[in-house]
Amino acid sequence: MAEPLTATQQAHWRTFIESSWALHTRLEDELRAATGLSMNDYHVLVALAEAPGHRIRMGELASRLVFSPSRVTYQISSMVKRGLVRKESCPDDGRGQEAVLTDEGLTALRDAAPAHLETVRTSFIDHLDDEDLAVIGRVFAKIREV
Amino acid sequence: MAEPLTATQQAHWRTFIESSWALHTRLEDELRAATGLSMNDYHVLVALAEAPGHRIRMGELASRLVFSPSRVTYQISSMVKRGLVRKESCPDDGRGQEAVLTDEGLTALRDAAPAHLETVRTSFIDHLDDEDLAVIGRVFAKIREV
Repeated sequence: MAEPLTATQQAHWRTFIESSWALHTRLEDELRAATGLSMNDYHVLVALAEAPGHRIRMGELASRLVFSPSRVTYQISSMVKRGLVRKESCPDDGRGQEAVLTDEGLTALRDAAPAHLETVRTSFIDHLDDEDLAVIGRVFAKIREV
Repeated sequence: MAEPLTATQQAHWRTFIESSWALHTRLEDELRAATGLSMNDYHVLVALAEAPGHRIRMGELASRLVFSPSRVTYQISSMVKRGLVRKESCPDDGRGQEAVLTDEGLTALRDAAPAHLETVRTSFIDHLDDEDLAVIGRVFAKIREV
């Protein structure tokens, strides 16, 4: 059985998990209210907008966004229905599939970005100094590989 | 309009938001699979189990868990239906309501705790040293007050 957390570990853990959950909820609520997009939609749009040819293989997208295969399939199907993304066979591998950004998806991302940036700044970035942000970047890069 | 993030801020922010989202998803999925409880259920049970008399006013519970009033009402109604919590009028104020932990709720928490602790350790705590954890505790305490 796992060893109990120390009192200090428990205090920091609870602060983190409750406060980061509230942050995710706030980002999601404000993005949806302003644009109708979810945070998952937004992350997929950003990843595709930055990819060469605006296209990423489904498996690579899942690993980039730390999604399970079933979650990425569900997510992309929902975005295809809304015209933000289309699915195509990989040119170099008939069996694989890629998610491809549509013009509508790119427009949705460009329209959403300013308001989302404002939320990211006021709810998080503007309250951290460079050192704190670097620690958080390093820790969460490690956690993501677990 | 908000100033764009620097490249460094953007890299750390994305790592944090994607990795912490994956962590929340993993905690939620593993807790649900092992116990049927959501993370929100778990946090409410922990808060009530530690409160004097196993009871907390609804408004205080909302602010403790950084929930909106409508979210806490929905959450507690769902837990009342499952017998984990009951609602009672505040003894010192006929109009207010308290959430009260039931015996069933306390048993559910005690049954869930060991597996949840294991996930918390293997997916987060065991990968951080004391200093990193202290930075995260401090930053997220500040963020929560925003």
